[in-house]
Amino acid sequence: MDVGFIGLGRMGRVMAARLVAAGHRVRVWNRSPEAAKSVEGAEPVDSAAEAFSGDAAITMLADDAALRAVTIEGGLLDSGQRPGVHVGMSTISVALAKELAAVHGRAGVPYVSAPVFGRPDAAEKGALNIIAAGDDAAMTRVQPLFDAMGTKTWRFGAEPEKANAVKLAGNFMLVSAIEAMGEASAFAEGHGIPGRDVLEMLTSTLFASPVYKNYGAMIMEGRYEPPGFTMRLGLKDVRLALAAGDAVNVPMPFASVLRDNLLDAIAHGDGDKDFAGLATVAARRSGR
Amino acid sequence: MDVGFIGLGRMGRVMAARLVAAGHRVRVWNRSPEAAKSVEGAEPVDSAAEAFSGDAAITMLADDAALRAVTIEGGLLDSGQRPGVHVGMSTISVALAKELAAVHGRAGVPYVSAPVFGRPDAAEKGALNIIAAGDDAAMTRVQPLFDAMGTKTWRFGAEPEKANAVKLAGNFMLVSAIEAMGEASAFAEGHGIPGRDVLEMLTSTLFASPVYKNYGAMIMEGRYEPPGFTMRLGLKDVRLALAAGDAVNVPMPFASVLRDNLLDAIAHGDGDKDFAGLATVAARRSGR
Amino acid sequence: MDVGFIGLGRMGRVMAARLVAAGHRVRVWNRSPEAAKSVEGAEPVDSAAEAFSGDAAITMLADDAALRAVTIEGGLLDSGQRPGVHVGMSTISVALAKELAAVHGRAGVPYVSAPVFGRPDAAEKGALNIIAAGDDAAMTRVQPLFDAMGTKTWRFGAEPEKANAVKLAGNFMLVSAIEAMGEASAFAEGHGIPGRDVLEMLTSTLFASPVYKNYGAMIMEGRYEPPGFTMRLGLKDVRLALAAGDAVNVPMPFASVLRDNLLDAIAHGDGDKDFAGLATVAARRSGR
Amino acid sequence: MDVGFIGLGRMGRVMAARLVAAGHRVRVWNRSPEAAKSVEGAEPVDSAAEAFSGDAAITMLADDAALRAVTIEGGLLDSGQRPGVHVGMSTISVALAKELAAVHGRAGVPYVSAPVFGRPDAAEKGALNIIAAGDDAAMTRVQPLFDAMGTKTWRFGAEPEKANAVKLAGNFMLVSAIEAMGEASAFAEGHGIPGRDVLEMLTSTLFASPVYKNYGAMIMEGRYEPPGFTMRLGLKDVRLALAAGDAVNVPMPFASVLRDNLLDAIAHGDGDKDFAGLATVAARRSGR
Repeated sequence: MDVGFIGLGRMGRVMAARLVAAGHRVRVWNRSPEAAKSVEGAEPVDSAAEAFSGDAAITMLADDAALRAVTIEGGLLDSGQRPGVHVGMSTISVALAKELAAVHGRAGVPYVSAPVFGRPDAAEKGALNIIAAGDDAAMTRVQPLFDAMGTKTWRFGAEPEKANAVKLAGNFMLVSAIEAMGEASAFAEGHGIPGRDVLEMLTSTLFASPVYKNYGAMIMEGRYEPPGFTMRLGLKDVRLALAAGDAVNVPMPFASVLRDNLLDAIAHGDGDKDFAGLATVAARRSGR
Repeated sequence: MDVGFIGLGRMGRVMAARLVAAGHRVRVWNRSPEAAKSVEGAEPVDSAAEAFSGDAAITMLADDAALRAVTIEGGLLDSGQRPGVHVGMSTISVALAKELAAVHGRAGVPYVSAPVFGRPDAAEKGALNIIAAGDDAAMTRVQPLFDAMGTKTWRFGAEPEKANAVKLAGNFMLVSAIEAMGEASAFAEGHGIPGRDVLEMLTSTLFASPVYKNYGAMIMEGRYEPPGFTMRLGLKDVRLALAAGDAVNVPMPFASVLRDNLLDAIAHGDGDKDFAGLATVAARRSGR
Repeated sequence: MDVGFIGLGRMGRVMAARLVAAGHRVRVWNRSPEAAKSVEGAEPVDSAAEAFSGDAAITMLADDAALRAVTIEGGLLDSGQRPGVHVGMSTISVALAKELAAVHGRAGVPYVSAPVFGRPDAAEKGALNIIAAGDDAAMTRVQPLFDAMGTKTWRFGAEPEKANAVKLAGNFMLVSAIEAMGEASAFAEGHGIPGRDVLEMLTSTLFASPVYKNYGAMIMEGRYEPPGFTMRLGLKDVRLALAAGDAVNVPMPFASVLRDNLLDAIAHGDGDKDFAGLATVAARRSGR
Repeated sequence: MDVGFIGLGRMGRVMAARLVAAGHRVRVWNRSPEAAKSVEGAEPVDSAAEAFSGDAAITMLADDAALRAVTIEGGLLDSGQRPGVHVGMSTISVALAKELAAVHGRAGVPYVSAPVFGRPDAAEKGALNIIAAGDDAAMTRVQPLFDAMGTKTWRFGAEPEKANAVKLAGNFMLVSAIEAMGEASAFAEGHGIPGRDVLEMLTSTLFASPVYKNYGAMIMEGRYEPPGFTMRLGLKDVRLALAAGDAVNVPMPFASVLRDNLLDAIAHGDGDKDFAGLATVAARRSGR
């Protein structure tokens, strides 16, 4: 397929490389142009509008503001050439996804939301879990692209914003797992038991899942740099979950605790560490 | 080995049966004597004191009060015949475990704390995870018993109460997982997405671990009866974790949320349902 | 003085009437024009721009969106005639206040933020507390207007947004007081003590202040309709406090609880009741 | 009247002195006997049993353990001479008050629970608020003693433990007020506004009550030593409130936050500072 790829951050560049490797023609664009050269075999183009064409265009940008700037404010949908499908893979708010769905509807461009679970190392192996929602035919058309980037695609119906809600729910559960490990670890240390021994046991047994194993290992080793995903980005996602819960009157007391503790971490200068470092807040508060 | 087994509740009777099946001689005692007959091949005795003898005696009672009544208040350690090792497998407070360690030390009876992870169905298959702490030689002597009941024994040093702290930390993480699923599910439902679809995806991928799969399935199906482990017992364990955290100055905001939400569930008449039903609190609070 | 007054909701109309009574010439404008006739002695004008003139213009609108629509998006600052001072008395976000300060600076119109404490009945008696920040000379010029509307003006320096931060801090403390009374009342009822007896004692002694007396009385009587200030507006203000705290890395666990409980109230259909009704959440959660 | 007074801590000694000043005959006893000499005009006796006699005996001890040790474990009710009424003025658990009521009932000694609001300086002026519950005739008999120590006596019915529940509810509201001021102050500081300016304004207006004024002043000045009432005692009372709420299924999310933050304070070495110092937790967590 002929694909435009907009946004070559830590995730985007690896995902675009997977598409190249799978034999697709990939035109890439990034705000800072050096990044565009980083994807071997892809074809850098000069503007987002040029990348917004072909069989499909994929956007993978940092946040609501970046995606809004490029698409809505950047007038992408008013440009002459437009893609067969726009696949939005960024982690954004439910509200913006809804707005994008409406805008694309009016412009006659099919819009599929397809945020992913997985960190850069998973993306490199094409091992992402892709959460997709949107027009069924459009999703089917871009399935070969999903197959190049992910292990499995999970479809959540016709309204694109639902995929974003699912992504936020998953990230919320993920940060909750980190917090629970952090509190359990501080608790154990308070009783003279190395936190790592407790986490090692629990993540090998009841909690033997990727999330607990990966983040558990980071907490056990106290290794939060370099970050795979920073505390600031973690807070961004928790904020999005709170806002989306708020919009439909769902109290989320765990999410409220997460927000307060991430703020505490950032206030202590740890905003650019890996968000597994949330575990240090429980430790610090207990005087360690 | 010649083993006395005190306490034949839902867990105790299955664990005792595993010992019988492994070829040990098992004398059993329970406060209400009918239960004692429920373990085929075991030998009912007339008093706790009679069971408190042989190579080892195991206690598996409901809570601090029950264990205290039988042991300390029941004068078990003053009786003539005493076991080679006392293995306390109940989920009790860190404080009581510490007290028992001291009392046994004075009486010259080795005391090993060995609470377990696993529900009755796991116990039936001998698939428990056993968390043990106490005198090393004593633990080694009773290892054949552990092998009959569990998949693996995890040792946490010489002070018995440490095993209890680890057990409470694990149960805290477990209830936290249920709460996180409950909030995520209410969040999804608020956005028109069946909670079960989200949980199914997450528990097959990032959270593919026994705890998430088992409790996730119960939440997906809204099936909280008959209970494997009740909300009231869940609250008991959260209270023990809070008290043990309090004793060493560890703030545990997640545990505080869990306590409040379990109280909410019990206030709404759900105390005897399975504690996976904690998930209903988030749903009810969001007006569902 | 010659004053334009924009926004004649429940607060605005009473405040404008105070200005008329104090002998000022008052031109009034409201989006729905009937309200404009409700202020006897005031002169209705046909557009916000017409009201945005004279010695001072006051805005008293519902929220960020309404104020932004009238001022920034409405092009008020580009209109030919402009007031000597713009006094923004709405409860708005710190972020919007900052933006307005910048925009007014560029347009050469002095901007004073002056949100108030007090409900409509206090406004009627000219008994508001006015929190003002902005250019010192400008504040001095409009002091006669403040004197007509309030008991006392509290100045918080030259940056207008600081007045808004103080207003949000005060409202946060106010909702916290309601929540504390709600929990204390549910606690008392749980022990068979009428909540009203406890609140009556406490609000006559340790907590004998306007906030506790007023809201306490409403909780004692369970009288939440008609609302003086709705639960929805209360949630709006808590959201603004959380956002403003978030912007400067201040964890606010009480505010997080308030948000969750206000969502719970709204999810149960109480969004349009007086926000003292927050107290019903604690009661409901305890099964009453 | 002829009164025995047991417990001469910071509060007890001042209260006993008020009784002496009012013309009562006061026999005093304290565990460490030096304190007994500190009340001029009172008559030190050699044992708690000797003080437990006369028209009335008052106990004013530090906590459940101390009161239990002297009364139930100390066999006070089995001693030959017994007072006309036992007035328990300590801040103790609802559970112990209930137990004492039962024990006294069996012994035929009227028991009145009468905890107080007010710090030592208020006690010195006889300005306490006394919360009383118990047999009506017994309360009436000791009213002259209450009049010597307090401004006003508030009666809460015939079951003594109700007075203790009311006391705990009041203390909970009091610590909540401190926390709210702490968060509001950290919030203001985050926005570049001196916390003291905000508290000064709020405690002169909406929150012009004794609690806010007294604790607000301490927070404004950051003056937490010497303590009037320590953080450790504050935590004790919050624990009692949580336990009493738990017993009747009342979730108290504010109380949960208070507990976590008091633990944080104590973990940071501030356990012996005045409990207004709870406000420092919000500041520290925000990086100040």
